[in-house]
Amino acid sequence: MRKTSIGIGLIGIGIIGGAVARVLRDRADRLSAQVGVPVELRRVKIADIDLTRPIIAEFPRELFTTDEVDFWATPGIDIVVEAIGGEFPAFNYLEKALRSGKHVVSSNKEVIAKHAAELLDLSRKNNVGLRFEAAVGGGIPLLQPFQYDLSANEIKGIFAIINGTTNYILTRMAREGIEFSEALKQAQSLGYAERNPANDIEGFDSVYKLSIMSMLAFQTEVKPDDIYREGITKLEARDFKYAEELGFVIKLLAIAKESEGEIELRVHPVFLPRDYFLAKVDGVFNAVLTTGDLVGDVIFSGQGAGPAPTSSAVVADVLASAQEAASGVGNRMRWRLDGGKRLRPMADITTRYYFRLNVADKPGVLAHIAGIFGDNNISISSVIQKEVDETTESAEVVIMTHPARESAVRRAVEALDRLDTIKAVNNFIRVGI
Amino acid sequence: MRKTSIGIGLIGIGIIGGAVARVLRDRADRLSAQVGVPVELRRVKIADIDLTRPIIAEFPRELFTTDEVDFWATPGIDIVVEAIGGEFPAFNYLEKALRSGKHVVSSNKEVIAKHAAELLDLSRKNNVGLRFEAAVGGGIPLLQPFQYDLSANEIKGIFAIINGTTNYILTRMAREGIEFSEALKQAQSLGYAERNPANDIEGFDSVYKLSIMSMLAFQTEVKPDDIYREGITKLEARDFKYAEELGFVIKLLAIAKESEGEIELRVHPVFLPRDYFLAKVDGVFNAVLTTGDLVGDVIFSGQGAGPAPTSSAVVADVLASAQEAASGVGNRMRWRLDGGKRLRPMADITTRYYFRLNVADKPGVLAHIAGIFGDNNISISSVIQKEVDETTESAEVVIMTHPARESAVRRAVEALDRLDTIKAVNNFIRVGI
Repeated sequence: MRKTSIGIGLIGIGIIGGAVARVLRDRADRLSAQVGVPVELRRVKIADIDLTRPIIAEFPRELFTTDEVDFWATPGIDIVVEAIGGEFPAFNYLEKALRSGKHVVSSNKEVIAKHAAELLDLSRKNNVGLRFEAAVGGGIPLLQPFQYDLSANEIKGIFAIINGTTNYILTRMAREGIEFSEALKQAQSLGYAERNPANDIEGFDSVYKLSIMSMLAFQTEVKPDDIYREGITKLEARDFKYAEELGFVIKLLAIAKESEGEIELRVHPVFLPRDYFLAKVDGVFNAVLTTGDLVGDVIFSGQGAGPAPTSSAVVADVLASAQEAASGVGNRMRWRLDGGKRLRPMADITTRYYFRLNVADKPGVLAHIAGIFGDNNISISSVIQKEVDETTESAEVVIMTHPARESAVRRAVEALDRLDTIKAVNNFIRVGI
Repeated sequence: MRKTSIGIGLIGIGIIGGAVARVLRDRADRLSAQVGVPVELRRVKIADIDLTRPIIAEFPRELFTTDEVDFWATPGIDIVVEAIGGEFPAFNYLEKALRSGKHVVSSNKEVIAKHAAELLDLSRKNNVGLRFEAAVGGGIPLLQPFQYDLSANEIKGIFAIINGTTNYILTRMAREGIEFSEALKQAQSLGYAERNPANDIEGFDSVYKLSIMSMLAFQTEVKPDDIYREGITKLEARDFKYAEELGFVIKLLAIAKESEGEIELRVHPVFLPRDYFLAKVDGVFNAVLTTGDLVGDVIFSGQGAGPAPTSSAVVADVLASAQEAASGVGNRMRWRLDGGKRLRPMADITTRYYFRLNVADKPGVLAHIAGIFGDNNISISSVIQKEVDETTESAEVVIMTHPARESAVRRAVEALDRLDTIKAVNNFIRVGI
């Protein structure tokens, strides 16, 4: 059953696909030596053969095709690498590849997060591999460790700074005291944020990545819609100022926690104690802390994103697939989705909270607030009256709570909103992990 | 070729072996589900069946044997787990297992560091796996990433705090201003250092681990004797005091750096800039920073050591071996030792240095010192005269250099030693990575 060479078909030759194509060409000898037989890029499917694009001009014209039928008919393609991103038509390509008995490598977090169960099932039925290490954390090894190194553990938690754009924005806000819109502009001008940044700043990107990590860690299907999501757009300079005064930093975390057979899954800003490891991960760096019941805490960190790091992960997956294809082994993944964990509703989580309220500067207001918290079984750990604005006769009040249930906090916020003396619940942010 | 069950033979049931035996027993269902067939501990070879030991009383008496012939004759053993440590007889057991066509899992850094090439060769010839993830960093995934996730990269560097005992001692010395002997005593009383601590404090343990990581990263044989080694016993409280004044911390690092086809390999104390990631890794924590040409810097960190984390790594290797054994695949490692990197002699490395000298408190001494540095082409970046001891008419002088060649520094130290006005070269420590 051993093959004498391994052929790769690549779909898309944008920034990631281009980097992958170059690594496969420039390191062909090294990669082939690892697999034991030549590993070759045999065909590239693209939308438009624009010969003025440098990446296209670098390769022989006949490597490229715009025709799908032609691409799938190319002989000797054992592995399909998908590098176009997005849900469709990527899903259709992955499905087609698996059904055709080709190993699949993808760097596409959205399609994997949304269609993991179906794709996994297809890969099993067709006895081929399905790999997507590059979909989370770029080049940082994050998925393989769950499948291999940590596989004897019950995973108890994942705490991740997994989106470089938002971490860069939060770092600027913390360091410079600027508002979100200004920090976003800076990130955009430096190329760290896209012109349409919703995917990052609204937390979708982190949700996709958490969904994928959780499926591997807990062997349980997690759809993006199952994950509570809150982006960073509501954070204000004042929140950072108060966080610092209280000994915290603000980070957008992706959190998965297991207890009593349930997992809670959420992406939102978090007040982290300043000395905590993840609190010190700044700029475009990514870091994932995971807790296994045997291994304790393990941390993976790095810059991760970008074409070269992403190609590092894609080509690692290509090598593993090539080795399986060459030896005729077929699907050897130990990933299953029958872990049977229940997903905990967001209303049932328990954590501490930070509140920033704008209140009327009148006697008795604090008693009203304390009453509402008390009615909802929320225990207050500190109340600090910050700025008083004499023109509007209002004051800013910061409240830190002891651990409380999210559902109780939601009820308290509604009650606060109804109170005349509360002008606004400016923000409430979860504290700690 | 598919097997209907996988049997494990364990050699040694000490702290690590005991933890492994318990995980294999307590998680049998979970592990078997991952492999697809039952995975069972079938025999344990020990030196003495002491029924008063709790770990032995926990298992059926007939699981144990003290007889080697009996152990190897046990039917249905596909995987041998070695958990006795040390070079011999561990090597003989590993050799015997591989020659008998059994997959091998070991947590033994010394035997792997010293005999990797021979064992790898045997594993190839007998088409079985050879795995030892637990040998470096306990449960922290460190070796598999070099073999899988980073396999498309040229590794440019490894910078590791990889021995918890020494890092604990250095952390205490830095925080409390105490001397080495006092910090060692504290570490011993807490169980963080052994009664005979030479293996840790003299750097042997770090050397074994660096040797193993380097062989995987550079695909080149590295014997422990190829690695320059300096422990932490010469460090004094004053070195920590001056380091702090100058903005540094002192860590015992294991360093492998590749450039121009050569690798330099060394374990010794290093002055690290305070803000540097590895400078902040304190106590018994381990951390490895590795640089790949595609991925950039990637960090792995965790507490690592101890029976549970080590069993996490051993059982991960058992699962991978079991999967190969069950599917009849045989050896699938991509690890080779034909990378052909040359090892750079220590005399040829270039780095900055810190010197602490005890000199006569007389005019002209600094000129003498400067003359010797100049003669050896070592450029001084700062000279600070610290304490003066009037009773001995001596002064302590701290010198920081610009990058210089190790051979030049060695010559300068010899010349300083010959100078009457230099009472002692108390220490010289390499600066930065």
